[in-house]
Amino acid sequence: MNNLALLKNIRVVLCAPRHPGNIGAAARALKTMGLSQLYLVGPQRFPDPEAEWRASRATDVLAGATVCTSLDEALAGVAFSVACSARSREVAVPAVTAREAAAQVIDVARTQPVAVVFGNETYGLTTAEVNKCRLVAAIPANPRYSSLNVAAAVQVFAYEMRMAAGDAPPQGRPRAMASHDEVEGFYGQLEAAMAETGFLNPEHPKKLMPRLRRLFARARLEKEEVNILRGILKALRNPKKRG
Amino acid sequence: MNNLALLKNIRVVLCAPRHPGNIGAAARALKTMGLSQLYLVGPQRFPDPEAEWRASRATDVLAGATVCTSLDEALAGVAFSVACSARSREVAVPAVTAREAAAQVIDVARTQPVAVVFGNETYGLTTAEVNKCRLVAAIPANPRYSSLNVAAAVQVFAYEMRMAAGDAPPQGRPRAMASHDEVEGFYGQLEAAMAETGFLNPEHPKKLMPRLRRLFARARLEKEEVNILRGILKALRNPKKRG
Repeated sequence: MNNLALLKNIRVVLCAPRHPGNIGAAARALKTMGLSQLYLVGPQRFPDPEAEWRASRATDVLAGATVCTSLDEALAGVAFSVACSARSREVAVPAVTAREAAAQVIDVARTQPVAVVFGNETYGLTTAEVNKCRLVAAIPANPRYSSLNVAAAVQVFAYEMRMAAGDAPPQGRPRAMASHDEVEGFYGQLEAAMAETGFLNPEHPKKLMPRLRRLFARARLEKEEVNILRGILKALRNPKKRG
Repeated sequence: MNNLALLKNIRVVLCAPRHPGNIGAAARALKTMGLSQLYLVGPQRFPDPEAEWRASRATDVLAGATVCTSLDEALAGVAFSVACSARSREVAVPAVTAREAAAQVIDVARTQPVAVVFGNETYGLTTAEVNKCRLVAAIPANPRYSSLNVAAAVQVFAYEMRMAAGDAPPQGRPRAMASHDEVEGFYGQLEAAMAETGFLNPEHPKKLMPRLRRLFARARLEKEEVNILRGILKALRNPKKRG
């Protein structure tokens, strides 16, 4: 797959969009950047003539849009997902800029489907929605008025993804990313080891596990790395006798 | 002047905009990126309630907009100007990407006023208009559909200018990155623990340490995270007796 063809592996998900004009403008934004997969979770009005008008010559993207009833449905089958949100808040996933997120998206999209998720015009994404994703990304903005229109935010992210795809060096061996289950298995073992040794007090866990999750989420663990980390934990708990 | 204050030195010029909605959306795009100077050359309808609606909370930018009768009037007093155009054509000025243009704009805007010029929704900028500028810049786009909405193009350029001006990381508190020495101290402790438990054979270390270094380098460890990881290692080697 060449670098620009991989853009077809990226789905853009709009959660509960209110204005059909924004859906149309988002479709146009995607097509101008070479993306084509639009997912709509519970749109208030769709299809709608205003969406068609704002889509301009991207009505094919609108016509091919997938309407879902839940974010889980829209994320089914993706290997990586980014929540786009301007609000800073306490979430369990690492926060990066749109540019950094785009680089990570392109990396995974070479081989597997990826989702980029945008919130509703009025309230954005809920914390529960953000936590369903693997990363939260913000467009650096004026702190006194950081509220981009949702289609404008889609345009900036789609642009950054196209730029990242264009910039990407020819691919080497694709890294086998650890699956959700494998990473969770490692976290479980780490938490148990910390509790057993008294480093973590299960009654007062503080922010220890969320901080460690954030660290390892940033690294985006590979399968083999999870195996190494689990091997180290196991060896530390049950040292071999050495000759 | 600090890097973000210089954004006030950039005027965004819309030539002959037809739809007041696009004027409003452009005002919003500017304000989200910390720009404030909007110039309108011969707008078809302005002021207009649709512009107000699409501007959202950027109506101050609309209210402060300068209406001109010619592009020359809008460019009066600027030291540098960029024409934004997707069309490639024979023009007398050099052509660059939006990202490259943004870097040049920021460089000049430190000390002098600069203009970024956008065309009409239907026919873009005329060749005569482009030739009044010092540079022509394009947003890299899908060659089969490169026509961004004018306010979407304003958003991307304004975003690139803010990025070029150098923005703070997305989350408020800057992360205190671990120093070289701190990270090396952690690696040393990790290697010693692995050797002590027999997980690593110092005579046949294979690629174990390089792989772990690569993993943690990707995460770009913070000071506090190094402290947590070292604490975990120490606890695993010397578990507390638990009541």
